[in-house]
Amino acid sequence: MSDSAIAYFTEDDSVAAVTGRVGSDTDPRLAKVMNALVSHLHAFIKDVELTQAEWAQAIAFLTKTGQMCDGNRQEFILLSDVLGVSMLVDAINNRRPDGATENTVLGPFHVDGVPEMQMGTNISKDGVGESCLFEGRVTDLHGAPLAGARIDVWSDNAEGFYDVQQPDVQPQPNNRGIFVTGEDGRYWFAGIKPVSYPIPDDGPVGQMLGHLGRHPYRPAHMHFIVSAPGHETVIAHTFVKGDDYLRSDAVFGVKKTLIADYEATPDAATAWRSTFDFKMVPEAAT
Amino acid sequence: MSDSAIAYFTEDDSVAAVTGRVGSDTDPRLAKVMNALVSHLHAFIKDVELTQAEWAQAIAFLTKTGQMCDGNRQEFILLSDVLGVSMLVDAINNRRPDGATENTVLGPFHVDGVPEMQMGTNISKDGVGESCLFEGRVTDLHGAPLAGARIDVWSDNAEGFYDVQQPDVQPQPNNRGIFVTGEDGRYWFAGIKPVSYPIPDDGPVGQMLGHLGRHPYRPAHMHFIVSAPGHETVIAHTFVKGDDYLRSDAVFGVKKTLIADYEATPDAATAWRSTFDFKMVPEAAT
Ligand SMILES: [Cu+2]
Ligand SMILES: [Fe+3]
Ligand SMILES: [Fe+3]
Repeated sequence: MSDSAIAYFTEDDSVAAVTGRVGSDTDPRLAKVMNALVSHLHAFIKDVELTQAEWAQAIAFLTKTGQMCDGNRQEFILLSDVLGVSMLVDAINNRRPDGATENTVLGPFHVDGVPEMQMGTNISKDGVGESCLFEGRVTDLHGAPLAGARIDVWSDNAEGFYDVQQPDVQPQPNNRGIFVTGEDGRYWFAGIKPVSYPIPDDGPVGQMLGHLGRHPYRPAHMHFIVSAPGHETVIAHTFVKGDDYLRSDAVFGVKKTLIADYEATPDAATAWRSTFDFKMVPEAAT
Repeated sequence: MSDSAIAYFTEDDSVAAVTGRVGSDTDPRLAKVMNALVSHLHAFIKDVELTQAEWAQAIAFLTKTGQMCDGNRQEFILLSDVLGVSMLVDAINNRRPDGATENTVLGPFHVDGVPEMQMGTNISKDGVGESCLFEGRVTDLHGAPLAGARIDVWSDNAEGFYDVQQPDVQPQPNNRGIFVTGEDGRYWFAGIKPVSYPIPDDGPVGQMLGHLGRHPYRPAHMHFIVSAPGHETVIAHTFVKGDDYLRSDAVFGVKKTLIADYEATPDAATAWRSTFDFKMVPEAAT
């Protein structure tokens, strides 16, 4: 290599200086991802002409965000959530045809090992909240019912906390259940009408939201994982229509098609009824 | 706002969904930086169609990087360094006319409180290494000497460690000095010919370099901070011409104009002599 061919670092060619270093034996996917990252990261810095002081703030912010993480708290996922990154990755990896139930983020409060229950079971074990019947059908894209569909549901209680957030206060499990559809594809269970709640905002991400004039709340929702043999698993929430935070979910989880009617039912066994049908897409052949 | 005007999150309009949330009272510079960050971050994710598994790896990597940081180790700065970010921020904030001495990164090993020394002092207190005379002039852009220029220098010893990395092995300070020019703008001091050394590579950043087929070494260099009344401070290194790692500095610090001759001087008091002149730019009026 002649001396003039050496790519020393310059402001103009900063990307090439870095991407030119990737070894020829590097995994091609890793090389592609890292080179794209460097390219967009440098473009960002050039666009805003980041100052030394801002760079130092960014380093301190990322450091604090990492140091906030432990077995119970994942501040970098929160950061990903509030920047729309979690939803974007979810959207890219779960593109579905029109009419199919859309995906949204899983969230941090799913729990494995909840027992399967009889259709109609009340999953609210503390009885705190306004009772609500959840019901609907699991079908394919053409409306044909899917038997043997597994419906895994969870929500907060009326105080805005999931059972795992209050191990000494709530019964375990509380507001969680698993149901399996019969031939008609129908599901129904009782619970409470969920309430909106804030994401943990006592760390650097919460501070950042404050500086941006953003609140930490998520609109009320019931979580669902619906899986049916031969079909793509749907991870979704149904959002409570009319919730104050539908337009401003701190983590951008709301999709228009996931907003569910919650209908007052004064004469029924539950105070509310929420109906939502899941339309499943065949699994991609592999 | 009508329901149709609500910007729910979609893959196509993911950036607008996030940037549209920034409050109207937000500091304009913060809003600009965050919106540009979101825009480039989302574009990166879309370009590579980041998978869920890759996203999870990224979260784990950032978390480990934060958790590696303590009072002595700043792994996020290392990450910034090896991605060319530190050098890019330095370049953007220290643009200078042709002929002026260029800047490079400060690095983590500068120490405050080193005493001013007589010109000619030997800063190598352990005597480990090949002796070298460093000399040159501090001038303005037209070559007029600058009196009262303060020259703050530091290097590793011949084993590749700075004094602060080996508090129990090396005298403190070692290979550090501060000199002030007289009317002729000249400086001269003795030290050792610096040697190349690896950046700390036992953490996530070192692991990443490994996956990318990159080594952790920096070419040998003497650090300088040169400040003269009425002129922009220069933070630079002079690199040892002929070093194996000039073409592949792990942190991209090398600029062509900062490579210095190191000339063998068998008949002189020191084994080597390195000459480098600093050309200073007037301070921007504020
Ligand atoms: Cu970009
Ligand atoms: Fe939730
Ligand atoms: Fe150094």
